[in-house]
Amino acid sequence: MQAFAIPDLPEIGPGDDLAAMVSERADLIDGDVVLVASTVVSKAEGRAAHLADYEPGSRAVEVADRLETATEESVDPRFVQAVLEEARALVMTEPFILAVTDGGHVGVNAGIDRSNTGGADLLLLPEDPHASADRIRETLDPDVAVIVTDTSGRPFRIGQRGVAIGWSGMPATRDWRGETDRDGRELEATVEAVVDELAATANLLTGEADGGTPVAVVRGFDGGSIDGSDTLFRDPETDFVRQALQGWSYAGH
Amino acid sequence: MQAFAIPDLPEIGPGDDLAAMVSERADLIDGDVVLVASTVVSKAEGRAAHLADYEPGSRAVEVADRLETATEESVDPRFVQAVLEEARALVMTEPFILAVTDGGHVGVNAGIDRSNTGGADLLLLPEDPHASADRIRETLDPDVAVIVTDTSGRPFRIGQRGVAIGWSGMPATRDWRGETDRDGRELEATVEAVVDELAATANLLTGEADGGTPVAVVRGFDGGSIDGSDTLFRDPETDFVRQALQGWSYAGH
Repeated sequence: MQAFAIPDLPEIGPGDDLAAMVSERADLIDGDVVLVASTVVSKAEGRAAHLADYEPGSRAVEVADRLETATEESVDPRFVQAVLEEARALVMTEPFILAVTDGGHVGVNAGIDRSNTGGADLLLLPEDPHASADRIRETLDPDVAVIVTDTSGRPFRIGQRGVAIGWSGMPATRDWRGETDRDGRELEATVEAVVDELAATANLLTGEADGGTPVAVVRGFDGGSIDGSDTLFRDPETDFVRQALQGWSYAGH
Repeated sequence: MQAFAIPDLPEIGPGDDLAAMVSERADLIDGDVVLVASTVVSKAEGRAAHLADYEPGSRAVEVADRLETATEESVDPRFVQAVLEEARALVMTEPFILAVTDGGHVGVNAGIDRSNTGGADLLLLPEDPHASADRIRETLDPDVAVIVTDTSGRPFRIGQRGVAIGWSGMPATRDWRGETDRDGRELEATVEAVVDELAATANLLTGEADGGTPVAVVRGFDGGSIDGSDTLFRDPETDFVRQALQGWSYAGH
């Protein structure tokens, strides 16, 4: 398996054809997985925004007040309004806002970026990352899979890692159910989140800083040929961590 | 960057010299990252165990009873005793046991495997995965990094992915602090969990089933040359998810 970053991509702006820009810079082949950072998908889709665009409602003012008290740092209620507008549900609001996006991804501030925004105040996640992945994939000529990635923190472990927020041309997970181990026993670990593992691989190459390269290709992992499911995000009914956080209070810290 | 699995490894048993077995099958070069599944490290270190080895104490009986009620499946209190003996702390006990191992990793059943055990009832995680990584690294000739990996589920997202539980010869995280984005703004996402991203990459290659290959090499990501920190596991004081789960109850589901 090989992984490489697409070189020499210019700064991306609204209306740019990402698929064409990738095709010009890489000889893709059937079975490649093309991983595109959500930042450049958002820029191409015109998802940059300015704080002045947002008028905070009473819920945003209330959350901003609580967050300011909890963190002892000033919080712009217009920013909270932007997060609320991007969120389908809130998991927690202090000491940071963790929100479920329309796409199902759970991210701090609903995945809104305040760095690498291309000069705007904010960069929102793509409106429908699956549709974004579909569009990029349809424009690429060989039979590839496309994954739109983000970086995200996680419980128990420090640091961010790449995750998938939209994908096309491959299942989200690889299913080992019914397979047996070397002793013939049925496997316990049965569902592997391959799109997230591919996003993590890409993040090793793409980097965060000003030298960052936002598109990577993984070759030799034929995502389209694996058996699996398209379900990556947990149902709230069975997501114990989400339930626990919703019943938890930061007060007292 | 390239990633490949080490071919033709035999079934590993107690006392086997993993480093020698890897050296014989791959021409490693300086800067390689060698990723070894904890299952084979455990087998080489004689960490297979049998349920008959465990005598359940009153805490194990109590947890087994509660788990049996919650899951409506029979739970062997000897298994719970094994988990308690491997755990430094419990995060939750229903509807599954989530435990902190001595090494700091938070895993279901303290990471004890019941498949791919090499014929035993149980396979415990390596006693000190960092020391295991150090030992393997010292025996390998070129200047490589070594990561001991496991697979683990996570909140919000379905499926398992590879994670690091021990490492040697590289930092756990890559530090982007103080670096700026293309607009010259300081980055928000500042710490990247590179050992986990490398473990995820390896897991794409190694697989879970009977054809699984438990050792992989990532070439072209020079872990030893990056700046970062060795801290990967969150402090319980600032791990909100751990706190929330410890205060949460499965009752009512």
